[in-house]
Formats: sequence, C-alpha cells, structure tokens
Amino acid sequence: FVNGKFCKNPKLAKADDFFFPGPKMLGLNISRSTSNRVGSTVTPVNVEQIPGLNTLGISLARIDFGPNGLNPPHTHPRATEILVVLEGTLHVGFVTSNLNPGNRLFTKVLRKGDVFVFPVGLIHFQFNVGKTNAVAIAALSSQNPGVITIADSVFGSTPPISVDVLTKAFQVDEKVIELLQKQF
Amino acid sequence: FVNGKFCKNPKLAKADDFFFPGPKMLGLNISRSTSNRVGSTVTPVNVEQIPGLNTLGISLARIDFGPNGLNPPHTHPRATEILVVLEGTLHVGFVTSNLNPGNRLFTKVLRKGDVFVFPVGLIHFQFNVGKTNAVAIAALSSQNPGVITIADSVFGSTPPISVDVLTKAFQVDEKVIELLQKQF
Amino acid sequence: FVNGKFCKNPKLAKADDFFFPGPKMLGLNISRSTSNRVGSTVTPVNVEQIPGLNTLGISLARIDFGPNGLNPPHTHPRATEILVVLEGTLHVGFVTSNLNPGNRLFTKVLRKGDVFVFPVGLIHFQFNVGKTNAVAIAALSSQNPGVITIADSVFGSTPPISVDVLTKAFQVDEKVIELLQKQF
Amino acid sequence: FVNGKFCKNPKLAKADDFFFPGPKMLGLNISRSTSNRVGSTVTPVNVEQIPGLNTLGISLARIDFGPNGLNPPHTHPRATEILVVLEGTLHVGFVTSNLNPGNRLFTKVLRKGDVFVFPVGLIHFQFNVGKTNAVAIAALSSQNPGVITIADSVFGSTPPISVDVLTKAFQVDEKVIELLQKQF
Amino acid sequence: FVNGKFCKNPKLAKADDFFFPGPKMLGLNISRSTSNRVGSTVTPVNVEQIPGLNTLGISLARIDFGPNGLNPPHTHPRATEILVVLEGTLHVGFVTSNLNPGNRLFTKVLRKGDVFVFPVGLIHFQFNVGKTNAVAIAALSSQNPGVITIADSVFGSTPPISVDVLTKAFQVDEKVIELLQKQF
Amino acid sequence: FVNGKFCKNPKLAKADDFFFPGPKMLGLNISRSTSNRVGSTVTPVNVEQIPGLNTLGISLARIDFGPNGLNPPHTHPRATEILVVLEGTLHVGFVTSNLNPGNRLFTKVLRKGDVFVFPVGLIHFQFNVGKTNAVAIAALSSQNPGVITIADSVFGSTPPISVDVLTKAFQVDEKVIELLQKQF
Repeated sequence: FVNGKFCKNPKLAKADDFFFPGPKMLGLNISRSTSNRVGSTVTPVNVEQIPGLNTLGISLARIDFGPNGLNPPHTHPRATEILVVLEGTLHVGFVTSNLNPGNRLFTKVLRKGDVFVFPVGLIHFQFNVGKTNAVAIAALSSQNPGVITIADSVFGSTPPISVDVLTKAFQVDEKVIELLQKQF
Repeated sequence: FVNGKFCKNPKLAKADDFFFPGPKMLGLNISRSTSNRVGSTVTPVNVEQIPGLNTLGISLARIDFGPNGLNPPHTHPRATEILVVLEGTLHVGFVTSNLNPGNRLFTKVLRKGDVFVFPVGLIHFQFNVGKTNAVAIAALSSQNPGVITIADSVFGSTPPISVDVLTKAFQVDEKVIELLQKQF
Repeated sequence: FVNGKFCKNPKLAKADDFFFPGPKMLGLNISRSTSNRVGSTVTPVNVEQIPGLNTLGISLARIDFGPNGLNPPHTHPRATEILVVLEGTLHVGFVTSNLNPGNRLFTKVLRKGDVFVFPVGLIHFQFNVGKTNAVAIAALSSQNPGVITIADSVFGSTPPISVDVLTKAFQVDEKVIELLQKQF
Repeated sequence: FVNGKFCKNPKLAKADDFFFPGPKMLGLNISRSTSNRVGSTVTPVNVEQIPGLNTLGISLARIDFGPNGLNPPHTHPRATEILVVLEGTLHVGFVTSNLNPGNRLFTKVLRKGDVFVFPVGLIHFQFNVGKTNAVAIAALSSQNPGVITIADSVFGSTPPISVDVLTKAFQVDEKVIELLQKQF
Repeated sequence: FVNGKFCKNPKLAKADDFFFPGPKMLGLNISRSTSNRVGSTVTPVNVEQIPGLNTLGISLARIDFGPNGLNPPHTHPRATEILVVLEGTLHVGFVTSNLNPGNRLFTKVLRKGDVFVFPVGLIHFQFNVGKTNAVAIAALSSQNPGVITIADSVFGSTPPISVDVLTKAFQVDEKVIELLQKQF
Repeated sequence: FVNGKFCKNPKLAKADDFFFPGPKMLGLNISRSTSNRVGSTVTPVNVEQIPGLNTLGISLARIDFGPNGLNPPHTHPRATEILVVLEGTLHVGFVTSNLNPGNRLFTKVLRKGDVFVFPVGLIHFQFNVGKTNAVAIAALSSQNPGVITIADSVFGSTPPISVDVLTKAFQVDEKVIELLQKQF
C-alpha cells in the first residue's frame, strides 16, 4: 500500500495502466444522467480508475449539469481544482478561509471555454445558470483528491453528528437541524 | 513574500523570532473568555505570531471551552491536527470523505491527557460535554494551516452564496436558508 | 519571486486572479489555426495566464490538431500530463526511461472521451490519425510545467549544439545533422 | 512498509487508529517519574503509538522535569519542534548551524504559557530553572521525528566511536574521553 | 514497494546497506572501458546498488570518457545533476525549455576540478574535447533519477515510434528517419 | 528571498550561474591545506558559490584529510550525504537515532573508489586511517545543507551553553566541561 493502493513492479507496467476508456464513462457524446436531487453528476478519473496514476499527483473529472443543476458546496482535502467549461454557462465560486478579512466569496459566470481555479481545501460550487445542459472538465492536483460534500458530511454522516453540536454550530433550533438531517 | 509572508535574512534572526509570550495570550493561568455564541475561543500561535515559523511546517493553538462550549465543524485546508486535552471532557469527531463507504463519523470522548488526530482537510469538531470549563492544546502540521468554519463559510460569506445554490445544496426551502444566513 | 513569479499579498487577491477568459483563447467554439509545420497548436493556461495558480501545482492546455497534425515528441521537466480527447482520433505514446528493459514505447489509439496519462519527464507525442480535426484538453501537475520539444531543443537551440556532439550522438554523418539543423 | 510502518487499508480504519489514551501515558494528573540521571522524562505520542498518524506529518510529546531536570542537548533529524510550557520555568535554547557567523546560541527563559520554536535539525535543550517540577507539551512536524541525544550518540553508541576520533574531535586527551564514555 | 523498491524494517538495517564497494565498480584506479559507439561509460551508484538510499533523495555516477568520448544528449526525469571533473577537459551544455526566449544552449569548457549544474529535466551532454581520457563524478538529486537518452528513446524504442510521427517531428523524409532508426 | 537567497528572473540566467571554477577552489591538482586542529578541510560548493542551484536540491563538497586528519562528528540538518573516496583510506561511520535499539554505530573502512551514505540528520564522521593524505567528494541532497559540528555547537557556541546544562548532559563535573569549552 502506498496512499492506500498497491504499487506495481515498474517492469510489469503496460499501456493499459495509463489508459481510461472514454465511451463507457467519460465519452462526451454520451451525456451522463443528471436525474438526482442536485441535477449534476461527477465522473471521476483518478487512481481508482487508472492505476498508473499512483504517486503522479494529478487526476481528472467530467461534470454534467442539467438545467439548474448544481455541483453543491464541497472541498477536496488534498487538491487544487482547475475547471474548463465545454458546454453551457456556469456560476462558480469559492469562499476564502477565516484569515482576516475572511469568508470572502469569489464568483464568476463562466461560458464555453472559460477556465477557473479553486485553491486546495476551500469550499466551492458550480451552478448551471444557462437554459441548456452544461458540461465541464475538472483537473485536480492529486491522484486521489478526495471529495467532501458539505451537506452530506455535516447533515448526512453515518452515524449522524449529535444534534447538540449542530444546533450550536448553526445557531438554529433542533427542528431545523432535524429537517436538514432528514434530507441526507 | 513566501507563503504570503516576508522572509528574513537568516543572519538577522534573533531569539524573539522563535518566541511567543504566553502570559498575555496563551498563558494557561489566564483563561480566555468564552462568552460568544458557540462558547469557545481559539488562540492561534502560527506564523502570524511567530515569524520564525515560516517554512517550518508546524503551529499551535490553545482552545478554551465554556460548559457546552463548541469548536464548531471546520476544516484546515493545509494541515493535520493533533489535540491533547488539558482540562475537562470533550466529545470530538471527524467525518471521512465521500470515498465509498463515505461520510463516516469517527468520534471519541476525550478526558484530561487524551490525544486525538484529525487528518488534513476533513470536517471536525470538539464539544465540551463536561460540567466545567475545558482546555485543549492543538498542534497543526503547517505554519499557516488556515481555518474554514463551515457555518460561517457557507451561510456567512461576504457577499453571501446565492439562495438558489443553497436551497438546492441543502434540499430545504428558501425560508430555512434565510434563517440560517441570518445567524452569520 | 517564487518560481520566477511575484507572489501577491493574499489580502489583495480577487476573482480575476483565478480566472482565464475562454472565448478569446481557449473557447472550444473558436478553433485555433493549425497551419504550421507540425499541424498542431498548444494553448497553455498556466501561471503565466492565471497568476492565482502560483504554488498550487496544476495547469491546463488545449491542443488543436489538423488532419495528420502532430504534437511532436516532447517532455515536461516538472509535470505529469493527463489528457482527454474532445474531438477526433489520436495515436498517442510515451517511451520509458533506460531502466532495463528500457526505451519501451507504450501507445494507444484514443477516441472522443478517452483518457491517457504521460508520466513526469518522459518523452511523449500525440498524432491525429483521424480524417477530421482533433481537439484535446491536457492537465499538468505543475503551475509551470515547462515544455522541451526534442527536435527544437536538440537541432534548433540558440546557439546550436556542436555538430561533433550531434554526429556522435545520432551516429550519422555531418550532412544528415546539418539537414536536421536546417529545419529548426 | 511506508516510513518503516505498515499502512492500513483506509476502508478498515476506525476511531481508535486516531486516538491515544491519556490517563495511562500522557495524563496531566499523573506525573511521570523523573528519577534518572538528567531529571527529565519524555513521553512521545507519534506513529508508534497512533498508527493513524502515518504520512500525516505531525506528532506530540509531553516532557516532565524534576527540579534542575534537563532535557539534554539533542536534535530531531526530521522535524521542527514547537513547545508550550504548562507548569514551571524553563531555560531553553538552540544553536544555529556553522553558517558564518555560526554556532550562535539563542536562549529564552519560558514561563507557564510561553511558546518557543526549535528549527529542524538544530541542537537544542530545555532546563528546569524553577524550584518546582515543570511540564511542557512539544509538537513535532513529523509522525516519526527521531531523537538524537548528543551525549548518548557521541559517547554512548554501540559499539563506541573510536577514542582516536573523539580525542581529535574534542581536543582533549584519552582520559577525558574515557571518562565521558564511562557515563553512557 | 516504495518507488518500486522494497523497504526494509529499519531495525534490520546494517552498514552494508549504505555501502558500495569501489574497486570492483567505481574504483578510480580501474578505468572503465569506453569502447562503444559514443566513447563513454556511465557507472551509476543509486538505489539499485545501495538499498539504504531509498527515500533519501540522492545518488552518484562515475563517467569515463575516451578521447572524443561523448555522454550523449539525455535528461533525468526526476533529478538535477551536479558534476565535477576529475581528469581531462569536457565541453558541457544544457538547453533551456521552450519558455520565451526558449531553447537557449548554455555551455562551458570544464577542466580538472571545475563544477557545473544541469537543472532537473533539461537536455544536456558532456563531450571530451581534450586529448586524453576524462573522468567525472556526477551527483543526482534522486535515489532513482532515471535516464532518457534522446537518440535511443526517439529512434531506438521497442517497438519503434511510427515513421509518420518522426518525419513530421524532424521535418525530414522517410529515408533520413530510417537511417537514424537503423543506428539504434 | 527564497531559502534566504534572492531568486533571479529566469530570463536573465546565464551559464556562469550554473558554474563553479575548480582550479582556484576545488581543483584536485591543488590540495587544500589541512594544518588545523582536526587535520581536515571541507570546501563546499553549494548555493552560496553557485546561485543557479537555488531550489534544485543538491550540492557538493571536497574534503581533504592530512594523515590522521578527521572530519569530526557533525550533522547536516537538511541533507543526506553520499561520499566517494578519491585518494587514501577513510574510517567512516554514523550513529542511528534513539529508536530502540538506538545509538547503533555503523562503520566501514573505505578505500579509493568506495562509496558510503550518511542518512539525513544523523551524526557522522570521516577519519583518515591511511599513511598518506586522503581526498573525498561528498554530494548532499540540498542546495543549502547546513553543517553542525557537534563539538563546536555544544562547547563553542556564542554565547556558551550554561555549565549547569552541560555538566548534567555529559554527567561530568564542571572542570571537565570548562576544559572542553576552552578548546572551542
């Protein structure tokens, strides 16, 4: 195990260790279904899919958005993300850390071909504000970047975070927290 | 600027560049006030306070908790944290990333002298479940670890994240989101 | 200077430091001309174009290929590359280092949506073997990956490498070397 | 083995992999005996004690000092140390490397709550100059920082360093070296 | 496997894991034969020869040159090289990357005792321009630096790079490419 | 300043930034005087002498030994060392850290052409046990490795380490410490 993955003897490596077949999973001609509660689907291509990426420090993902589709606020604990829009119009943003003046939201509306950077570990999102589907390619500076979706992590963990913690953290009463937890 | 800080000519360094006076800010005999909405106060000692830490990859913080005080769910985008309890009893936890099976909550009740680790970038919290004040020392694996408090970053950024994004992310209606935003 | 670039005070950062406008330079609806001797054009989006990328360890490039267009054998001295095909059909490959058994060529024919990895520092190429134009997006694991095009570096440097070195290196006579040097 | 330790499949991790029980080993209410020749005891909490620390780049130690107790001159070959005094008064210092002007001693007297930094690889010490016991917490920027106690390493190795080397290194005669070696 | 090598339990390490016997392989009194097509021989001393080097980030090589001997243009994908001439006179050089103004050749004639640096990943060479044999010691900033000899990698890979790629890359006709390929 | 050195605009770099002239300082035909108390002289070639080495992670040193000359016990806080003997016979060694079983001395007698590795941060020495002068080349895995000579750092710092610290550390009386301090 290195980074939780077996490493191969380099003498046994072959071209397929560095290859990921598109048509089945990343093919641009085959849109991914976005019929889920947020209206978006992420298709990762990292060390899980391409063993040859181990220790090389990079990976990709394709993101499909239906109309009003959202890649909800999330972080990558081990990677910066750079994203290019292939189709559609995205409202994107990230929030800076608490450094004074902190919690600043940086946003931009991206159109076909625009590129935007989300620095390592910061909370960010992408939202389809056009009338059609949207598609983006994201590159991440780790072969195993990790994803922490804020809503799922805070309100949908197994087991759940205690209601006492969440009412104090979000400064709302128990009913609001339970409503939020019910969604995840 | 290296990491956003000036670096000093090493020949001009002096002992005070590596020193942080406790009694004023970190002295254990002088408890910090915890009269705020979460009932806890973090006193950081990082490269902002000790210039000599630049590039050395480590920093400290003291955390004071009133009864029921909470260091609310947050992440450090550039650091792992290791915490030791000096006084009191803390319920602590972190949530793993989305890796299948994802969003697992790991918790522990810590007593005086217990130590716990929060891996880099994961959402974590510490909650005083004892009847007295509690105090902990946290060490972080960066001279400038950053802090992202989830509630402040998501519901209290400047400017705010659009309500359309947040209603879809948390799967609740506009009123709940506005209620949450009003707190921050 | 860090990596040969000025670093900005983080308090003065703004969204445009993390943004690269597509339509003018990377817009997929606006193909780049490929009327040059190799029939391909690389459009980089790295720390030169997006100052906010400094120290973040990632960048992108769009590559346009005319029919029979070639991104000729080259290396990135500081980055691994991961490439996804957006349009067309590419014959791609890289050669391993001298490690016994060395100089093995790994190749693949990539179609729309296929992904391939070129490990850091190895000589690699992409060749359009379809009948139409081809387009690919490449992500690189450095904000400043560098490019060394073998033919330009060996036969087209300023000043030129001495003919004595090149005749011995390539084991051909002076006329062949001079013919090669004349092209660059 | 990574860093000489087995890595666990991340899917099998559990909370106890990130936990170290205090009362038995680090509990502040249970002072460690300091009845040894230097009058101090170091209790490490690193990857040996907490397997979950592997690759995370941080560890802790508690240091107990009797009156006149000394944590003798030593280095950590792979870590910077940041120390906070919990009880008592410590005279601490480190010596810079040979860089001209070299071998400068930086010292400070630390009281309860004071913090000091010992940069990676430099020789440093902590000495209890108060009348009571003293206690400090040290954080180190490696999960496996290593400790090289100068006196033990130079005069107490197995087998011993040859007397010819030591007489020349310390510019004293054989009897002095043998006296020093007899202590370790 | 770490970097493709087994790591040893540190408790089992012994002096021979850090040792490489010279007389058989690197002894300066025993010149290496340079009767090959380039007139030079490289004798590496890296993690293949000294297991204790794993993860330590350094290695050595001895290079012997006959009269007119050439260490032909090559790169180390993972290491910077620093070279000292022990005997003879070498014309050395490296070519910068494509960064505008790119492909600049930096050269120097080195005599006994001179030192030169070849930055990571750049194409470089050393050529004996004296009348006698020459010998150099090179140090590399990786325990496993890799070597990519340009001519062997481009014209001598297994299987060969397609002639279509090479004619376009070097802008010469098929016969010239086939002539070059025949040499390797 | 990066690592305490100015970085140059890469467009202004020239060959001399990567060059160090031997005859004056490192030339093998010009032995260095070893008339000093330890009978050895180290001639470093690092970022102080070759500005182009900054950030490249490697440097060299030549070491001259008179008969019975000693490069006394020292550490490099930021580098592993790999050494090759050019002339003479050296008794070399390093001591492992305190890890149980700790403080093990690893030694070897090296002859012309032999190579030995001293891992980062460990105390090590080289001693001329032949009847003639000896010469070695050492490569270090940092452009600025640092040197901490144990005797100078412990007994010769400015100001001196307090006698109370040293008597306890070395378990000898004040007179022995004062004798040792008088030498440095």
